[in-house]
Amino acid sequence: MPQTLHDLLAAFARYGGAENGGVRRLAATSEDKAARDRLRREMTARDLTPTIDPIGNMFGVARLAPASREAVLVGSHLDSQITGGRFDGAYGVLAGLLAVEAVRDRAAARPGAARRNLALVNWTNEEGARFQPSLTGSSVFAGTLALENAWSLTDRDGATLADALTAIGYRGDAWLALAPTRYVELHIEQGVRLEEAGADIGVGSGAWAARKVSIIFSGEASHTGPTPMPRRRDALRAAARAIEALYEEVERELSGAHASAARIEVAPNSPNVVPEKAQVWFEIRHEDEAIAQTVGDRFLRRVAAVCAPLGVTFDIAVDERRSSASLDQAGVDLVRSATAALGLSAITLKTIAGHDALAAQKRLPASLIFVPSRGGLSHNPLEFTDQAALDKGLSVLIETLWRMATAP
Amino acid sequence: MPQTLHDLLAAFARYGGAENGGVRRLAATSEDKAARDRLRREMTARDLTPTIDPIGNMFGVARLAPASREAVLVGSHLDSQITGGRFDGAYGVLAGLLAVEAVRDRAAARPGAARRNLALVNWTNEEGARFQPSLTGSSVFAGTLALENAWSLTDRDGATLADALTAIGYRGDAWLALAPTRYVELHIEQGVRLEEAGADIGVGSGAWAARKVSIIFSGEASHTGPTPMPRRRDALRAAARAIEALYEEVERELSGAHASAARIEVAPNSPNVVPEKAQVWFEIRHEDEAIAQTVGDRFLRRVAAVCAPLGVTFDIAVDERRSSASLDQAGVDLVRSATAALGLSAITLKTIAGHDALAAQKRLPASLIFVPSRGGLSHNPLEFTDQAALDKGLSVLIETLWRMATAP
Repeated sequence: MPQTLHDLLAAFARYGGAENGGVRRLAATSEDKAARDRLRREMTARDLTPTIDPIGNMFGVARLAPASREAVLVGSHLDSQITGGRFDGAYGVLAGLLAVEAVRDRAAARPGAARRNLALVNWTNEEGARFQPSLTGSSVFAGTLALENAWSLTDRDGATLADALTAIGYRGDAWLALAPTRYVELHIEQGVRLEEAGADIGVGSGAWAARKVSIIFSGEASHTGPTPMPRRRDALRAAARAIEALYEEVERELSGAHASAARIEVAPNSPNVVPEKAQVWFEIRHEDEAIAQTVGDRFLRRVAAVCAPLGVTFDIAVDERRSSASLDQAGVDLVRSATAALGLSAITLKTIAGHDALAAQKRLPASLIFVPSRGGLSHNPLEFTDQAALDKGLSVLIETLWRMATAP
Repeated sequence: MPQTLHDLLAAFARYGGAENGGVRRLAATSEDKAARDRLRREMTARDLTPTIDPIGNMFGVARLAPASREAVLVGSHLDSQITGGRFDGAYGVLAGLLAVEAVRDRAAARPGAARRNLALVNWTNEEGARFQPSLTGSSVFAGTLALENAWSLTDRDGATLADALTAIGYRGDAWLALAPTRYVELHIEQGVRLEEAGADIGVGSGAWAARKVSIIFSGEASHTGPTPMPRRRDALRAAARAIEALYEEVERELSGAHASAARIEVAPNSPNVVPEKAQVWFEIRHEDEAIAQTVGDRFLRRVAAVCAPLGVTFDIAVDERRSSASLDQAGVDLVRSATAALGLSAITLKTIAGHDALAAQKRLPASLIFVPSRGGLSHNPLEFTDQAALDKGLSVLIETLWRMATAP
């Protein structure tokens, strides 16, 4: 089975595989379709019944306990960032596939042990690289994002998620028929805490809060040559100052927050025209929700101070506040216990990255299991976790799922 | 004839006309083709013989002096910025068209007066909005840009200028058969000096120097969430600091320079990935070439200082130095004299914006004639010059061309 996991990861890395060894598999593209088609074949080959829901989430149901309407969900996502690695998301889906198969086989050998069913899930557009916001499929599943709103999300070229799903044949019509009781997700850490602690497994106890703010700066187009400097109203200059102000706010206060400004769109973006418009996507993350909000508020005051002397106005296009979250404590205890039973070491940590488990846990108890990432590098083609660590994660996932499927 | 100029400007403003009243007519696009086709029809209707050269420059020859191989060139460009107005370029071409017709008619009434011919010209890709660098057609004409290099310029989508010209049917095979002796260009000022001086006409005596630097900042893609802040190598953060450093350098020294950073391209430009690459197009302009270079050098040292602590490296992709230039003094005197003869007021000024006349004057004496721009606004749909001012410019152009065509 370990070899199977390794082979599956290599096979899926070819869907959207880039020359640099990374993966570019944006949600609902032809690359995503190819990976989804392959996953469907892998499900069918293992007697998991595939279904697709209206937001494109893929489920593969294993009927361990035909008398039960309950199911434990396990999975992650197959979409990637533009500069994605081969583990982020795919690891959780493929390990989930093998874990469901393993638990199903174990249950078959012990009739009556399984009290509920299992379902593998591949969530749509976790990354938010093509459609924003991220965690789309799991948020619709959780009921925190209306299906119509998710359908109408639009990519840079004006395509809606609904149309993109239809185009690849993954806009389904069947909601999951079973009643999910728990969700488990196995993922690479994407940080350095496991590596620094020398631990095999990270058990997610919760998540940092995040504030995601997208700001549109509006100036005036004019000639970059003769227009007198004091007359210019330069949207990009304001955006540049705002970007630096963000980092200054985060660092000046030693707040411990993480922050980024990672996307910018400028119009007309021509070397000879003073930019009339610039939109920047900012985010601030902190374990303490109050601090994330406070840093965000201070940042917005800085933005106002930056814009005024430049004659630039600004509009807040998005101000999304993601609460800090606690994951189900019983789930944490169960994963820790399963890890210990396998003789592996674990630490508990709060995730800084967003995960489908955080969206799902608004509907049902969710658990997150992490394995180390080399150097913490992720969203990068060089993202890497060695095979031994991946196998340990799979073992913990199997043991966890077994306990969840058989618990009274 | 004034009404004709007004009508022609309105007619051409429809080619690539935007809803906001502006013009988006990038070089060698279908909009440019439509305007070129119309110009060819207007030439033919006036018995000007159209020819197209290999870089797509359009000429319309009026044989005033069939015995002479010489010709005075007059024109400008029909391409526009993305957020262009209706006067920048088109005014010089259309007034040139009418001026050639008027001088030709005057010459016909005075046999023997004309000592040389006239040729209207529409230069390819003056703006540099689609293909960089700008002034492409006039630079090939002047011999300062090799045809092969111009052909291989590439737009954002990877199309070459050669292919784009072929696609619209304007990659010609005939170089201008006549020997050009002078070039004259009528243009809106795009600044405020005429307006502030209350003058009818600006006579270009030269041009500011410019230094155009494009820098590629290279960091490392990683997750914007969990990646520890000190480990990030954020190319956009470095770019933002460099943008501000540019303006600080210009303003701190009260250098009098004009500067801009008006185009930026970021990769992968996804909200959840620390930017691994950012390219910014910077420019510095000053009347004094030494100051433009010095400010540029100081700026580049600032860039190095900005990048190092962020773990970002940078490469200078372009460092183009445009000398300050003096336009032909005899041409300045001639235009001033023609203006005075018409009872109009003139000031002499150095242009800050680039113009085809600056490229052309590397091959032959060139003259620039300006009319006022309301508020100096240009590269903006609201760019405006009133009809009376446009007509004055046309009158000066006719008188100038007449004197040039008839001079011994």
